[in-house]
Amino acid sequence: MPPPAAVNIDVAAQAVDDNSASTTPAYLTVLGVDELRANSVFSGGIAALGLSDAFKSKSNTKKPVSKDFTYRLTLESKSRQVGATCVILSGGTYANVVPQPSPLKQAARYLSREGMISLGGGLPSSAYFPFDHVSVGVPGDNLFSETDIHEYAQKVTIGMHDMREGKSAYDLSVALNYGQGSGSPQMVRWVTEHTEIVHNPPYQDWASVMTVGSTSAFEMCLRSFCNRGDYFIADEYAFCSAIEAGRGLGIEAVGIHMDSEGMIPSHLDEVLSKWDEKARKAPKPFLIYLVPTGQNPTGSTQGTQRRREIYALAQKHDLIIIEDEPYYFLQMDKYVPGGNQNSAAPKSHEEFLKSLTPSYLSMDPEGRVIRLDSFSKVIAPGSRCGWLTTSSKICERLMRHNEVTVQAPSGFSQAILFKLLDEHWGHGKYLDWLVHIRKEYSTRRNIMLEACEKYIPKEVATWTPPAAGMFLWFKINSEKHPAHGKKASTAIEHDIFEAVVDQKTLLAKGSWFFAGPEGTDPSVYLRATFAAAEERAMVEGIRRFASALRVTFGLPALQESA
Amino acid sequence: MPPPAAVNIDVAAQAVDDNSASTTPAYLTVLGVDELRANSVFSGGIAALGLSDAFKSKSNTKKPVSKDFTYRLTLESKSRQVGATCVILSGGTYANVVPQPSPLKQAARYLSREGMISLGGGLPSSAYFPFDHVSVGVPGDNLFSETDIHEYAQKVTIGMHDMREGKSAYDLSVALNYGQGSGSPQMVRWVTEHTEIVHNPPYQDWASVMTVGSTSAFEMCLRSFCNRGDYFIADEYAFCSAIEAGRGLGIEAVGIHMDSEGMIPSHLDEVLSKWDEKARKAPKPFLIYLVPTGQNPTGSTQGTQRRREIYALAQKHDLIIIEDEPYYFLQMDKYVPGGNQNSAAPKSHEEFLKSLTPSYLSMDPEGRVIRLDSFSKVIAPGSRCGWLTTSSKICERLMRHNEVTVQAPSGFSQAILFKLLDEHWGHGKYLDWLVHIRKEYSTRRNIMLEACEKYIPKEVATWTPPAAGMFLWFKINSEKHPAHGKKASTAIEHDIFEAVVDQKTLLAKGSWFFAGPEGTDPSVYLRATFAAAEERAMVEGIRRFASALRVTFGLPALQESA
Repeated sequence: MPPPAAVNIDVAAQAVDDNSASTTPAYLTVLGVDELRANSVFSGGIAALGLSDAFKSKSNTKKPVSKDFTYRLTLESKSRQVGATCVILSGGTYANVVPQPSPLKQAARYLSREGMISLGGGLPSSAYFPFDHVSVGVPGDNLFSETDIHEYAQKVTIGMHDMREGKSAYDLSVALNYGQGSGSPQMVRWVTEHTEIVHNPPYQDWASVMTVGSTSAFEMCLRSFCNRGDYFIADEYAFCSAIEAGRGLGIEAVGIHMDSEGMIPSHLDEVLSKWDEKARKAPKPFLIYLVPTGQNPTGSTQGTQRRREIYALAQKHDLIIIEDEPYYFLQMDKYVPGGNQNSAAPKSHEEFLKSLTPSYLSMDPEGRVIRLDSFSKVIAPGSRCGWLTTSSKICERLMRHNEVTVQAPSGFSQAILFKLLDEHWGHGKYLDWLVHIRKEYSTRRNIMLEACEKYIPKEVATWTPPAAGMFLWFKINSEKHPAHGKKASTAIEHDIFEAVVDQKTLLAKGSWFFAGPEGTDPSVYLRATFAAAEERAMVEGIRRFASALRVTFGLPALQESA
Repeated sequence: MPPPAAVNIDVAAQAVDDNSASTTPAYLTVLGVDELRANSVFSGGIAALGLSDAFKSKSNTKKPVSKDFTYRLTLESKSRQVGATCVILSGGTYANVVPQPSPLKQAARYLSREGMISLGGGLPSSAYFPFDHVSVGVPGDNLFSETDIHEYAQKVTIGMHDMREGKSAYDLSVALNYGQGSGSPQMVRWVTEHTEIVHNPPYQDWASVMTVGSTSAFEMCLRSFCNRGDYFIADEYAFCSAIEAGRGLGIEAVGIHMDSEGMIPSHLDEVLSKWDEKARKAPKPFLIYLVPTGQNPTGSTQGTQRRREIYALAQKHDLIIIEDEPYYFLQMDKYVPGGNQNSAAPKSHEEFLKSLTPSYLSMDPEGRVIRLDSFSKVIAPGSRCGWLTTSSKICERLMRHNEVTVQAPSGFSQAILFKLLDEHWGHGKYLDWLVHIRKEYSTRRNIMLEACEKYIPKEVATWTPPAAGMFLWFKINSEKHPAHGKKASTAIEHDIFEAVVDQKTLLAKGSWFFAGPEGTDPSVYLRATFAAAEERAMVEGIRRFASALRVTFGLPALQESA
């Protein structure tokens, strides 16, 4: 096994903040990682089990232990056990809940014994993987633009036997073989450190488990906490894949009213306080699904106070919070109409992290938050690799779920991400990349907002400048539509959608995301994204949208100065 | 879009067999693929939907239509729909069952319209993927040994914009973005062609959908066909992850007795014919899980006649067959004790394919077989990429399941596999690789079998030479064990297991795989694999196992000639 990445003991031993050698923070920082690794043993061979506990800083031991929410688990989740005949080993897994991984994975753990010959697990020999190495062109030092990445790409290479040869802590012979349901120790270590640096969860027994993306992770959570006929709580406009995942399982969303900061606490409290199990024929819901930052589809971001209020209600009503945060690092400066939007970049990693709205995970001493993290919006969706963080008691159950379903993320994905994030960038440079990505999306947002101000008739469409994410949410004043009173609002929405399509521009319908409350009809909304289109196309798209609105609402065409 | 791979029209137009330019087979062959592609349009852009129907040969239209088994689907599977407000487009999906993909995926389909500006889907721009290219060292021409792969690796490269630049039918800008639940059109095309070449399913509306591996695919099938309290049918010793997946869902396996060819048809018929719903408190099971070739753990392979008998019973009892075939191409020549095992390599791809025992898929005109294919045992487990094949009516439902769970296999995996399998190798060279892999495993099997004959005391352990796969299954004559009559068979098994571990060798316990029949205890078995260990270690492992047996059973030590 190779040693951990090179350590500068003089610097690391002080566990310094980025900008101050005199403070010793009581939490893990970017510069503290080297020391942390230097004082721990890493084992990452074929099918090795490496759980978060091995990678967390000692500061965690001073925190309280989480509450036990396993009583909330479904029969399915509780039943996922290894039969009595299979139990041969203990240890190495999360405490308290069924300590045995599946028998074949257990057998794999014998491999580490000196001189052991395994004829046990059906793990193919890497001699039969038709690959020699994988090389990836990745960004050179702070050269993050698309052009720079192309012109000055640095090559990182993952060889078949780099571990044996002492070149790396990961290689293809391991990444391309079977792995554990927790994901590779290499990636579990990285996401654990990252999570501690960014969120520092305020209880000791938190853990992270790799996922094949937050869509899968959310569906696992639904199956782990809800039964057919149950409800879960969501924003009244919510990510439609989440709603659709629930629908197949017979678990409907209860939509809670929103304002510009997302879910309104008073309505959440009202819905839960007045929940009538008999009338609803369902127990009071306790699973709440939130995208607190740059919410999809509304683009709303919950401020710190809003989060504290919702967390307090979660305590009052004993809720489990699913915090789905693909856009967390896409938090932007406040948009000033007509103003100079070029604000200064953060001076340090600490300043950047402190500028972010605190996560639910960071304000949860009880372990009632399950945070879903994703590389989809900050690295690439096709990696199909993310992670979740919650108490180890719940993590263990979700890891078991992984074992008999997806197993683990792709080894190609894990190896390439490890090479980029851990060995090439390290935690600091990854934060630099996030700062870059955030700036790019801020610029895109600003361009779209300027186009909106220029073209869109405000008497029929209004919007709130998003503080994060990728989405701009237009409220359409359907009362001014010619068909108002004659057609249903969804029909009016469809007319507008089609009029925009006729102008060769595609927006998303608000009703696609509508999740109640029951008995209410959606108002007319349209969602635009500033994520994808080229900047000129984005402006032109908004111009066409505005033009379609003018035609549909019978407004005069905009007279543009040439 | 770039043109398909170079086509030799003169050759392809004849749709010739590998070895004869005079015959025109009524099915797709390796050499027919170029013609097939030349006569079809391929579209594989960002989030493009490409289903099997677009990639099958015309010969399929002459086949009968499958029966409709959707009545077997669970409420969960049937419920997975897109709500009425989401329906904006039709077309492009499988017929008969709910023709709408999720709204965001539908929206993505507008992208193909000329001049369309999309502000619709939240697909990130590839400008923010921190990669320039991925290069992979793959085997040079027929240089398949590990040493040759390392020394003569050829480099294949996937660029960010290879499609735009006309270099390839796939690139990172597509592979690393979001995709459809069916998997990328690039890989769906390849697996569809491969499946037709190898199995030529005898009905017209078959289709293949990408999976994140057969563990996930099987679990999807369980959820799609069985409810809590149901049973599914399995071999009495079965792949323990499959059993464990069922256990979490409250879907227990009913184990059917086996002989050296796996499941015994008469016992299957008896169990089903005598099924007592009242006594069992469960409906008669109809889902049957089989690993027909090189079964895990017993190593047994069902012959053609055995398969026909079980298929006939599937028709009699109206069963759905899950054909899980990771070891299908690891079919070996018959082992002749003491004989020369070096048989001739097949002279052509056709000869190779004809040498394989026909799959259930190939003998199923009704669409009652769901075949699970995997790259895990013939390329690499870490690819977490496979596919399933069944009627498009069922495929559509499983694709919907993918959409709200795993979405699609990793884009890194799909792009690397496409580069290797499609552009570098093509179908013919992939078959050559399979011939190579099969030969390697045959050699390993032979070495292990020779060691067994040399070392193992046959009075206490017997085995059948496996005809496929990776596993050797030892039946232990526990009646000769000193604790016979005093300890339960599982305790005796454990004693032997521990004795082998004490000799620093790891085997798998047979009881880990035991799936009934109810009320019966497992006999004592141990499983060895010849997949992983180096050849000398494998021989030494068998010697140690034999030594442990001699100690445990109180036999004299073997006198070895030096």
